[in-house]
Amino acid sequence: MAEKGKIAIYPGSFDPITNGHLDIINRSSKLFDELIVAVSSDNSKETLFSINQRKNMIEQSVSNINNIKIRSFKGLLVDFAYSENIKTVVRGLRALSDFEYEFRMAIMNRNLNEDIETIFLMTHEKYAHISSSLVKEIYFLGGSIADFVPGPVLKGLEKIKDE
Amino acid sequence: MAEKGKIAIYPGSFDPITNGHLDIINRSSKLFDELIVAVSSDNSKETLFSINQRKNMIEQSVSNINNIKIRSFKGLLVDFAYSENIKTVVRGLRALSDFEYEFRMAIMNRNLNEDIETIFLMTHEKYAHISSSLVKEIYFLGGSIADFVPGPVLKGLEKIKDE
Amino acid sequence: MAEKGKIAIYPGSFDPITNGHLDIINRSSKLFDELIVAVSSDNSKETLFSINQRKNMIEQSVSNINNIKIRSFKGLLVDFAYSENIKTVVRGLRALSDFEYEFRMAIMNRNLNEDIETIFLMTHEKYAHISSSLVKEIYFLGGSIADFVPGPVLKGLEKIKDE
Amino acid sequence: MAEKGKIAIYPGSFDPITNGHLDIINRSSKLFDELIVAVSSDNSKETLFSINQRKNMIEQSVSNINNIKIRSFKGLLVDFAYSENIKTVVRGLRALSDFEYEFRMAIMNRNLNEDIETIFLMTHEKYAHISSSLVKEIYFLGGSIADFVPGPVLKGLEKIKDE
Amino acid sequence: MAEKGKIAIYPGSFDPITNGHLDIINRSSKLFDELIVAVSSDNSKETLFSINQRKNMIEQSVSNINNIKIRSFKGLLVDFAYSENIKTVVRGLRALSDFEYEFRMAIMNRNLNEDIETIFLMTHEKYAHISSSLVKEIYFLGGSIADFVPGPVLKGLEKIKDE
Amino acid sequence: MAEKGKIAIYPGSFDPITNGHLDIINRSSKLFDELIVAVSSDNSKETLFSINQRKNMIEQSVSNINNIKIRSFKGLLVDFAYSENIKTVVRGLRALSDFEYEFRMAIMNRNLNEDIETIFLMTHEKYAHISSSLVKEIYFLGGSIADFVPGPVLKGLEKIKDE
Repeated sequence: MAEKGKIAIYPGSFDPITNGHLDIINRSSKLFDELIVAVSSDNSKETLFSINQRKNMIEQSVSNINNIKIRSFKGLLVDFAYSENIKTVVRGLRALSDFEYEFRMAIMNRNLNEDIETIFLMTHEKYAHISSSLVKEIYFLGGSIADFVPGPVLKGLEKIKDE
Repeated sequence: MAEKGKIAIYPGSFDPITNGHLDIINRSSKLFDELIVAVSSDNSKETLFSINQRKNMIEQSVSNINNIKIRSFKGLLVDFAYSENIKTVVRGLRALSDFEYEFRMAIMNRNLNEDIETIFLMTHEKYAHISSSLVKEIYFLGGSIADFVPGPVLKGLEKIKDE
Repeated sequence: MAEKGKIAIYPGSFDPITNGHLDIINRSSKLFDELIVAVSSDNSKETLFSINQRKNMIEQSVSNINNIKIRSFKGLLVDFAYSENIKTVVRGLRALSDFEYEFRMAIMNRNLNEDIETIFLMTHEKYAHISSSLVKEIYFLGGSIADFVPGPVLKGLEKIKDE
Repeated sequence: MAEKGKIAIYPGSFDPITNGHLDIINRSSKLFDELIVAVSSDNSKETLFSINQRKNMIEQSVSNINNIKIRSFKGLLVDFAYSENIKTVVRGLRALSDFEYEFRMAIMNRNLNEDIETIFLMTHEKYAHISSSLVKEIYFLGGSIADFVPGPVLKGLEKIKDE
Repeated sequence: MAEKGKIAIYPGSFDPITNGHLDIINRSSKLFDELIVAVSSDNSKETLFSINQRKNMIEQSVSNINNIKIRSFKGLLVDFAYSENIKTVVRGLRALSDFEYEFRMAIMNRNLNEDIETIFLMTHEKYAHISSSLVKEIYFLGGSIADFVPGPVLKGLEKIKDE
Repeated sequence: MAEKGKIAIYPGSFDPITNGHLDIINRSSKLFDELIVAVSSDNSKETLFSINQRKNMIEQSVSNINNIKIRSFKGLLVDFAYSENIKTVVRGLRALSDFEYEFRMAIMNRNLNEDIETIFLMTHEKYAHISSSLVKEIYFLGGSIADFVPGPVLKGLEKIKDE
């Protein structure tokens, strides 16, 4: 049980993964024996990348970290966590608006399953202005996003633009 | 005049009504001789429930309170209030993001009709994480929302899922 | 009982009363049969004006409103409200920082006495930048505060400066 | 170079221009030798008015100010600024939510081009509750917006309603 | 090394410990093999309780949890953490104002020692309105704080009042 | 007149100047023909450094910038600006709490003198966690602040510690 507490889930859409996400992954991988990056696959909002593309880009971006697994999940995060017997969820906080949304979700998840604990890491100030949607917007307006996303995402975006 | 001030309007989309809304309705019904729950019927955003379904679910949920009327309205809230000769609007505040939106709307409504007064009640901390949209999202992802909405809403959602 | 709900308390330090306070007093006096302006008298922080000076300046500033009483109180607001058999407290919200403090106090007061209801009015945008402490700071730096406080406060400040 | 710093860009969608925008334009036109109002023309979100309609309404609304030019631009703001050899961007801040978004954009723009400086003016409190989208919503719900937009916008909206 | 990461520090003034602190201690004790509650002893602001009184009240309040040690420290938290070979700091977030202060401190601590990681838990909504200073204020105004602090703190406060 | 608009004031306590202040000075010196750094000298809160020490540390820290003057002022900022025939005030924004305070002061200053315009620059994210008071606190707790303040401030602090 206590042992299981040493595994944590870092959930998200990751459409695509950014350097801000990587910062949280890197730092939380040191806090736990194992970190599961969980890609939400039935989010109602349309995604630019398919679930498999998103998982592949993450996999290529975290290949240097040993204790990471990448999974996709459908439905509620708390149900996925329960089915994996994991009780700890990691989330990054960038700013105030994150705070409110995350606060609400953390309370809701605790209401849905009182065993689930959410811990928060503050995104490094270097990455606090980056989000998946802003990165996509800048890219398609012709801006350079090489400083904001890992290499595999750059390649993924180029492929989509070429289509 | 003063007498009319003792009636208040609690407006919203109520798509569907939640236990957070009920908390505000309960508490503000004690502050006024009569409380009109006013369901907005021409909101541009699509609703899950029809205006009649929303009114019915509210009606069944507040049947224990005597001094409540349920109405629908089209157009601007201030025009509806004026046509009903009511000057007091009640709104619930859950959090910071509510605050900004509500602040803006209260000022705008005062600009549109300077007789309209908006009063705010803070949603009980037990319900501060609940919103109509979050409740719907959780329900359709398979989560239990029995703690967040009144019984008639649970039945209403089940009907929709069965369709 | 219901009748008693039509009386409300507007508590504060009022050191001194500003045009922002007057705005809230004016507007909430229309919502209730009677409004009690309750001046806190054992606040641990030192005040510029004595409790009697503060009460007098309020009295002179609201003489045009009929349904107002001015009282001082010691100890907890909820105890004063209970002793007066009043259940409704009025507070003004100017800004975000108010919101957090007021939120906390409203929840705390409800914890201390669950019958107490706090309602909030948003301070008119004309007065949102005014506070008792800022008004004092500007006055003693030599600025004109005639637009920010009622006449009796101007006189009160002049007396203090002359001493 | 230094001379070029005395020209500034005020970018936006202006769909349509409001009295809040006009306030910022008026005040920033006094800070610089020339102010370029730059209308974004390839914004992914649909606009009510065409790029030419938006430019015309601005033009008619600022005809009393000498040192203003109106332009449209495609793509990234920083690229447009660079192509015009301008380094200063002006933005209005109305409220907290503006602050976060603007903070993020200012940092992102500095990341994209470190020569770009963003300066902020606080929208006059009279206009802080006005936004293009709220104005449109109120207009189409039948409310009067004569206090919130300049005359040419009122005419523009009437034309659209008549269509 | 990795092993040391499983010990965490929960620092604070704890003047006195509240049920909100206890909530964070309880929950974070499950995330780590050992949790050190670190009481700051040279804080420039005057405290109501001595460092020993504060440590004793914590000790009596957490006697049911096995993996907790209580320490005091002087000077910078990052220096204390370094001297104990601990890299993880736990902090509770109650609200927005906490967020800003904590954000600033977390970044500052990372600047002072880049190995230090701060993780945040959100205080249970039941306790979000409680703070050490508010509890003291209410107690000395005659209010009941039995719901907000553990028994040993109630006794500690009574002793001080009797003096 | 227009010419005078090209001079701006950057006011503050600067007790002591930090790298965050220097960032704002550097960047705003490029926006104006002349920048006056105005050190408030009759602030009611006690300062660590005398007005002359604060001016000297600023002088030594900005010696590489040509178009800067350092002044002290007593009383209201708007009165000082008026006496110098300057209409533009520069302020840095670091975070949300800054925003609210600055918003309030900007509106108040415009109320006191409607010719005064306040413009805001966002402090570089590298410096957003730094404040004069935090720097002093860390220094006297034994931490290294070499990354947060210019050299002359380090020397100034050492002198005080030696006394």
